[in-house]
Amino acid sequence: MSLPAPKLEGLPPSVRVVEVGPRDGLQNEPVTLSTMQKIEIVDLLSATGLREIEVSAFVHPDRVPQLADAAAVFAGIQRAEGVRYSALVPNARGLARAAQAGVAAIAFFTAASETFTAKNIGMTIPESLQLYRELIPQAASYGMHVRVYISTAFVCPFEGIVAPEVVLAMSEELLGMGADELSVGDTIGHATPAQVARLAHELARAAPATAIAWHFHDTSGFALANVLTALELGATAFDASAGGYGGCPFAPGASGNLATEDLVGLLEAMGVSTGVDLERLAVAAHAIERAVGRAAPGRYLRRLDAAAMTAAGDCGTPLTA
Amino acid sequence: MSLPAPKLEGLPPSVRVVEVGPRDGLQNEPVTLSTMQKIEIVDLLSATGLREIEVSAFVHPDRVPQLADAAAVFAGIQRAEGVRYSALVPNARGLARAAQAGVAAIAFFTAASETFTAKNIGMTIPESLQLYRELIPQAASYGMHVRVYISTAFVCPFEGIVAPEVVLAMSEELLGMGADELSVGDTIGHATPAQVARLAHELARAAPATAIAWHFHDTSGFALANVLTALELGATAFDASAGGYGGCPFAPGASGNLATEDLVGLLEAMGVSTGVDLERLAVAAHAIERAVGRAAPGRYLRRLDAAAMTAAGDCGTPLTA
Repeated sequence: MSLPAPKLEGLPPSVRVVEVGPRDGLQNEPVTLSTMQKIEIVDLLSATGLREIEVSAFVHPDRVPQLADAAAVFAGIQRAEGVRYSALVPNARGLARAAQAGVAAIAFFTAASETFTAKNIGMTIPESLQLYRELIPQAASYGMHVRVYISTAFVCPFEGIVAPEVVLAMSEELLGMGADELSVGDTIGHATPAQVARLAHELARAAPATAIAWHFHDTSGFALANVLTALELGATAFDASAGGYGGCPFAPGASGNLATEDLVGLLEAMGVSTGVDLERLAVAAHAIERAVGRAAPGRYLRRLDAAAMTAAGDCGTPLTA
Repeated sequence: MSLPAPKLEGLPPSVRVVEVGPRDGLQNEPVTLSTMQKIEIVDLLSATGLREIEVSAFVHPDRVPQLADAAAVFAGIQRAEGVRYSALVPNARGLARAAQAGVAAIAFFTAASETFTAKNIGMTIPESLQLYRELIPQAASYGMHVRVYISTAFVCPFEGIVAPEVVLAMSEELLGMGADELSVGDTIGHATPAQVARLAHELARAAPATAIAWHFHDTSGFALANVLTALELGATAFDASAGGYGGCPFAPGASGNLATEDLVGLLEAMGVSTGVDLERLAVAAHAIERAVGRAAPGRYLRRLDAAAMTAAGDCGTPLTA
């Protein structure tokens, strides 16, 4: 028996999986879910073993009406022991609403390219950093866990490739303000493993690996190759969305966030523990499929479905002449 | 500017892409294409820059009626300069038919698990090897390029994990018989990068890297992570299917072969040349979609579609409160 190749020997025994489906995954779906449907989905996700779930966002109800019920969703979910339930918050008003709703973990968001930041949040990058310089200590004073998303950390749909140094500088600044965690995002799903390797290498100077979560979209099918690369370079946390919903209106029809089942399926198959039960995750993903009315774009769910349908079966067209 | 991480510095300048869509991709589709449709698809693939295309199979027409027109397809295609057009052949009769049709490259097939081999080709593994011991020299005497598929080289749907040593032993034997190339297949798409690393490590003892092609299915979404791993360990050739068709009746609804666009998209984005034009590949994949009447399961095609639809666009739901 020969040894496995050295490069895959150093995988960590476990990683954190941050479920962003209820917020990032569903916010772009054309169907608006009822508050009860959202609560059911979060509760099903809570039962999978996931320990971090981004539940909703406290954003202006007129701008994002499908998330106007954030407080009601937080009030309705069954909080499982040891699970961190978080909300996206864009500004002081959102932070106040989150605090009022008893939310103990929040996420701010900016991006690493000016054009995207302007279009997404109507600020320059320095303006957004200035805002968070005020809000992060305020959130910390509420005892909240603070995550900051850095979108377009690899590629901007308007400006192209983003230099890793830009992400490094922003990361240093945000961690210096007291952010607990950064999520570096491949917002449009064009990042390659080579880019991931470069950014991981860069960020290792600024932050402990435990302060960085990697947020991949599967638009191009590259997400798990990127996960593997980050993992080999010390990554400890990945964002994912049950079913693989989410994504970007810039790429219509393209699949969205990395599917949580795909991520968990790969990690568990390589002996990297996630704490997540794949069969329960399939139950949650199926509930999302029913609520959204669109088949989940993720791959692994279909594998789980097939395994459930066919306990035994025949494989391959017999080709004997 | 810091350096990229060392592990992704060593990627090769180019790799071979073996297009298996016309045969492996389409043989399991419920729709039978007309001979003209098949010819059109092969011709469109020939125009992409692909240099190896598996066109059809000379198998018993009663067993696989959708491939009964193999000779007519070979007679009808426009052979592009420098492109290798190959056919699958299961036995002496198929080999004779291929020779008669002027086919210059053939592929035999066996598998690394007994149960799968029995169900797929009605032989034991040693029986299949004995057959090819006779047929490979015969094919070579016709001047044919000989590929042999080793299916279930990682996981068998009936027996589970396949030991890399089994694949190593078969590979040594087949190369010793005079096979030019082996294609090691993750037939049901369950292989992980850790398994790929182990098999690559093992095969490196038996064969030059140029004699091995890696054949991944994307059932679990793992295919490109597997490609990346193989590539880092010296792989020089990958099989793929335009649009991502193909797959296994054992996993209904699951996506099939790794999509050629996904493979080419990743490789080219990392500077690994394939010689394939992605826009022309999209044209071919769209022709397959029309012929088959089912959206291609690959990811990258939707990214190409989106890029074509939206030369400029807005990305991300603006979230400012």
